[in-house]
Amino acid sequence: MIHITRRERFNAAHRLFSDELTDEQNMEVFGKCSNPNWHGHNYELFVTVKGEIDSETGFLVNLKTLGNIIKSKVIVKLDHRNINLEVDFMDGKFASTENLAVGIWNELEKSVIEIGAELHCVKVVESENNYVEYYGS
Amino acid sequence: MIHITRRERFNAAHRLFSDELTDEQNMEVFGKCSNPNWHGHNYELFVTVKGEIDSETGFLVNLKTLGNIIKSKVIVKLDHRNINLEVDFMDGKFASTENLAVGIWNELEKSVIEIGAELHCVKVVESENNYVEYYGS
Amino acid sequence: MIHITRRERFNAAHRLFSDELTDEQNMEVFGKCSNPNWHGHNYELFVTVKGEIDSETGFLVNLKTLGNIIKSKVIVKLDHRNINLEVDFMDGKFASTENLAVGIWNELEKSVIEIGAELHCVKVVESENNYVEYYGS
Amino acid sequence: MIHITRRERFNAAHRLFSDELTDEQNMEVFGKCSNPNWHGHNYELFVTVKGEIDSETGFLVNLKTLGNIIKSKVIVKLDHRNINLEVDFMDGKFASTENLAVGIWNELEKSVIEIGAELHCVKVVESENNYVEYYGS
Amino acid sequence: MIHITRRERFNAAHRLFSDELTDEQNMEVFGKCSNPNWHGHNYELFVTVKGEIDSETGFLVNLKTLGNIIKSKVIVKLDHRNINLEVDFMDGKFASTENLAVGIWNELEKSVIEIGAELHCVKVVESENNYVEYYGS
Amino acid sequence: MIHITRRERFNAAHRLFSDELTDEQNMEVFGKCSNPNWHGHNYELFVTVKGEIDSETGFLVNLKTLGNIIKSKVIVKLDHRNINLEVDFMDGKFASTENLAVGIWNELEKSVIEIGAELHCVKVVESENNYVEYYGS
Repeated sequence: MIHITRRERFNAAHRLFSDELTDEQNMEVFGKCSNPNWHGHNYELFVTVKGEIDSETGFLVNLKTLGNIIKSKVIVKLDHRNINLEVDFMDGKFASTENLAVGIWNELEKSVIEIGAELHCVKVVESENNYVEYYGS
Repeated sequence: MIHITRRERFNAAHRLFSDELTDEQNMEVFGKCSNPNWHGHNYELFVTVKGEIDSETGFLVNLKTLGNIIKSKVIVKLDHRNINLEVDFMDGKFASTENLAVGIWNELEKSVIEIGAELHCVKVVESENNYVEYYGS
Repeated sequence: MIHITRRERFNAAHRLFSDELTDEQNMEVFGKCSNPNWHGHNYELFVTVKGEIDSETGFLVNLKTLGNIIKSKVIVKLDHRNINLEVDFMDGKFASTENLAVGIWNELEKSVIEIGAELHCVKVVESENNYVEYYGS
Repeated sequence: MIHITRRERFNAAHRLFSDELTDEQNMEVFGKCSNPNWHGHNYELFVTVKGEIDSETGFLVNLKTLGNIIKSKVIVKLDHRNINLEVDFMDGKFASTENLAVGIWNELEKSVIEIGAELHCVKVVESENNYVEYYGS
Repeated sequence: MIHITRRERFNAAHRLFSDELTDEQNMEVFGKCSNPNWHGHNYELFVTVKGEIDSETGFLVNLKTLGNIIKSKVIVKLDHRNINLEVDFMDGKFASTENLAVGIWNELEKSVIEIGAELHCVKVVESENNYVEYYGS
Repeated sequence: MIHITRRERFNAAHRLFSDELTDEQNMEVFGKCSNPNWHGHNYELFVTVKGEIDSETGFLVNLKTLGNIIKSKVIVKLDHRNINLEVDFMDGKFASTENLAVGIWNELEKSVIEIGAELHCVKVVESENNYVEYYGS
């Protein structure tokens, strides 16, 4: 069993708020992250998959294939996008890094199985001081 | 003559576009950076000042003082803000990293002189692959 | 179950030595790290907590709250301090990174529970080449 | 139980290919990584060991000792070398990062036990976008 | 006048040696960098251009255009290549980082002028401890 | 003319204070950096030298030689040391990063000339947020 990790990046806008709260209440709960005019981040995404080394290639998976899956299933939907308004798998959810990690996991899980590996961890780095990891349950 | 640099950070949303162009034309010139729903970045700001070492402190300037100037003049206006909509010194300008560097220079220049140094360089890092430097002219 | 990590930093002085050893013996065991005049580091502290996402905020915990706990319980005691002489929770212990990680865990464990999460890992990075992780047992 | 990690680095050349495939087939499977004239990387190696803190030193292991083991058992064989042609423990294997991590594990496992710890993880970082972790089974 | 920098990366193999020296003499002058079986690096390339901000776009140059020039003129020739054997603009030169920086400058200079800017600096980072900068004369 | 930079690192303790001030006054001027029990940093030192490329080696200078000069003239005096108490070239000076950069310049200037180059810049990074550059006058 080996673990292999691929990093991809995306830049996006978001806002943390609840539409059941007033602007003042949102400011109290979410602080400046609730700014109605949005703010944004350079997100880093680390996707870790696990499985056995293929004796015919020396690979767990072809990293180019894995990178293409992450790009087509996730990055294309998130990069230079507004997470609250434009990302189908975040529809109706708070645009928190926690929910983003879970959402990305769900987008990737099946495709990783199809290339003969198992999704192990989705790590979303929001800033040099904050990151979230999701292991699937 | 010594140079000293202070890093501060801010997260902001922006959009690159010209209101004299259609959405299609903006997409052609600015690509996905023109997304009308915004995107954003973790910006890093490096402010370099220069001058003589003060023989009574061993400092060029007190870095805490310099940090406070950068925070009060620039970061408070940019952090968790929309650069196109909410930043007074960017009013009427394209929200490009180039203009941001020039705008930040203008906000800081006088205050740096008041603490006995000279502004040397404003460097704005938009992503790990792109940064802009402005030396004042 | 989600994991979220907050980074905080502190600069401190320390010395590795045993008062049951002579200076020569200390030099033999601990090398230049035993210098009686101290040396120091820019430490990075990564605190990982785990738990369920709160459906009313999209958060596991409010990262600002977590940051404040780390600052008030740990950073204020360590930053710009001498780990051997001034840090109550290191009293009577070797000022090793290992003991520091365990000591920080003990300072934080209860407060993390009080905000509805569970402490998962304390990671202390002493230099770009060395770090310690403690998982609580 | 504590985990401690030591980073070492090496620069090496390698090539991904199968001698049962033609150059064209190799290009199809391995892409530009199969270039017969080689390419190379600045590899980062993170070795994590675990065990109990020694009450007489405050250490799990002496990091200098651990560093010396990694250097003598692994780095000296890999640094400024051709992984396909010159590294005994990679003989007859694909020069993939996966196989490299497993090979390094096997070189280190016994020596780590001899200094009173247990090998926990070998992490090989091939580029800022790719890394492999091996936990020994 | 503004400066803007674009980072691109390439992985390559090389060897430092003089064919007027014996292997032993090469080892004496160039050390392990002269290994006849090659070694390699993850090179980082920072290209800085300068000029005036275009008032119709807020840009000095379109960074995507600049990135494409660097990729087509330089990266495609260097990435996953052997610098000694396969790179036309390094033909007959020592594969040192110094010569690489000068060679890259010569490849880029004219194309940068064609997009309305001036080449200011080519910086080649060979490892976290070494880099070279060339300013064109 | 080419510029080449070598990074070396050292860990040291220091304290910012004036012995003409009381502890309270020192605290007012230098803040927590004046702690009488010291604090410390992982310093990064970037030494940039300039000159012509040697046509017989492709080098400006042999980086190993440059590294050895930096280690023997500077690092050995600073690493795991107390900058206020133990570093001859800082004797009688404030242990500020500014003075450290100037002091290191003076230690290195002559030796760099002896290997056929010219010292261009000494950069001392005290933390991820602060650094000082000295160009020799």
